[in-house]
Amino acid sequence: MTDSQSPRAKLIDGNAFSAALRDEIATRVHELRDLHHVVPGLAVVLVGEDPASQVYVRNKHKRTLETGMNSFEHKLPADTPESHLLTLIEGLNDDPEVHGILVQLPLPRHINAQKVIEAIRPDKDVDGFHPWNVGMLASGGIGLIPCTPLGSMMLLRDTLGSLSGLKAVVIGRSNIVGKPMAHLLIRESCTVTVAHSRTKDLAAEVRAADIVVAAVGQPEMVKGDWIKPGATVIDVGINRITLPDGKTKLVGDVKFDEAVQVAGAITPVPGGVGPMTIACLLRNTLTACARLHNLDIPEAHPWA
Amino acid sequence: MTDSQSPRAKLIDGNAFSAALRDEIATRVHELRDLHHVVPGLAVVLVGEDPASQVYVRNKHKRTLETGMNSFEHKLPADTPESHLLTLIEGLNDDPEVHGILVQLPLPRHINAQKVIEAIRPDKDVDGFHPWNVGMLASGGIGLIPCTPLGSMMLLRDTLGSLSGLKAVVIGRSNIVGKPMAHLLIRESCTVTVAHSRTKDLAAEVRAADIVVAAVGQPEMVKGDWIKPGATVIDVGINRITLPDGKTKLVGDVKFDEAVQVAGAITPVPGGVGPMTIACLLRNTLTACARLHNLDIPEAHPWA
Repeated sequence: MTDSQSPRAKLIDGNAFSAALRDEIATRVHELRDLHHVVPGLAVVLVGEDPASQVYVRNKHKRTLETGMNSFEHKLPADTPESHLLTLIEGLNDDPEVHGILVQLPLPRHINAQKVIEAIRPDKDVDGFHPWNVGMLASGGIGLIPCTPLGSMMLLRDTLGSLSGLKAVVIGRSNIVGKPMAHLLIRESCTVTVAHSRTKDLAAEVRAADIVVAAVGQPEMVKGDWIKPGATVIDVGINRITLPDGKTKLVGDVKFDEAVQVAGAITPVPGGVGPMTIACLLRNTLTACARLHNLDIPEAHPWA
Repeated sequence: MTDSQSPRAKLIDGNAFSAALRDEIATRVHELRDLHHVVPGLAVVLVGEDPASQVYVRNKHKRTLETGMNSFEHKLPADTPESHLLTLIEGLNDDPEVHGILVQLPLPRHINAQKVIEAIRPDKDVDGFHPWNVGMLASGGIGLIPCTPLGSMMLLRDTLGSLSGLKAVVIGRSNIVGKPMAHLLIRESCTVTVAHSRTKDLAAEVRAADIVVAAVGQPEMVKGDWIKPGATVIDVGINRITLPDGKTKLVGDVKFDEAVQVAGAITPVPGGVGPMTIACLLRNTLTACARLHNLDIPEAHPWA
């Protein structure tokens, strides 16, 4: 079949969307500086030398500076005692130049990650992992929302408009993506099913859904014939696989080549949800800054 | 058809289960007193004279005393200023005799209920409504769990044993029942669907479910032919309806007479979930007391 004969889903372009969002954030940052003499600041803490984490932290730093915000990097050796890290966080909690604090996960094993998350002031917790923020999201209050689900929801709203009454399935029940994503979808009045490794007939759950959010970290697990024709597919997975020729390739949790023939719209990997995460981190930092200064500025992408 | 020919669901006896749970709690309370010289104390705050709330508070007081715990009642006039209520809560937060604090809802309109909920120390918040506890439940941590979902889950576990892999539908997305119930079911490895007023085909969602939790407050909304044969039905609704003869009657959210012919097990109304709520409030008070005193006692019904 040629392309013109194939039914092909609309590609949801996370690169373009996140670039526009970052531009919008930069505009707001400049307004804040010019009108209120406030510069939002993001502090990122990295413990140890995990190569992937180093790449993430470097990208965050670069993107933060590009919007005109301050970026504060704290790189600590892998053997940093937990108490040292907690003291650093206390200092950042009290630092008026810092509006967002992110501790890069995973942390070395000798550090209790939950304790570290709970040490961050909830109103500076731009990852949205503190129990206060988790609770505010679950109960419909105003807090800070985890970046990847927030970015996924922005793409969904941009693609579909109102989600009210649509049937959504979230595959995966992690605290970082699956559960907060379910709350965002419930808030948007979707009928939401949370599926996971214990789900008996995952294909049937997916087939019933108008919206599929895949967040399991299993390369190409969701097959094309599981997708309801016309459904919107958000692929949160980023998995590196080795091809027969020994080269590696990034793939999502969805078998893209199959799904793109069935879905109404789909995020590619890379270039879908991925770039939204940092953009939403910057948005959360701007939001936190405005709230900490009691400034009622128009939020970049006010949806959430 | 006579009864012997009809397929009839097992009745889930919340009266018997809650009485046994209260006995177990009383045993633990006496152990705490004898071994550790600690008496758990529950403070209940009632603002105004809502008749239903007065009945609830009276029942809580009676049941608390029956287990050997201390019960502290604070009845305030309907025009109590919010600041006065917040000052009272601060005092209860600091009172070493008080291990559980419950502010009876609804509150008069001039009082911001969310502000009041957030004023209660999370480790004394035996209703489990504080954002911290909501967040701990959502993220799989250890907090205090709202009483009605906790009681519903105890009945489910008692009826079914392991719930892993079962398909559950929760009808209703309230912060008090629907959303925490969904989290408890996810934690038990069910595939969980949250349905609500915007759900397009509620009957189809219910028909697919092995476990149905109805928490919408709509009398007899869930029909018998929506129930999958053999499913377990937990009816959280308590609605008073007026019969043609002018008398009133309590009914659930499920059309019981129909559903009992199809379901495998079902809670009646009254006598199902209802009596579990106070029993779980007492359990949460005991749990909070043990944690506040760093006592590692066996919990009454340690499941949750």
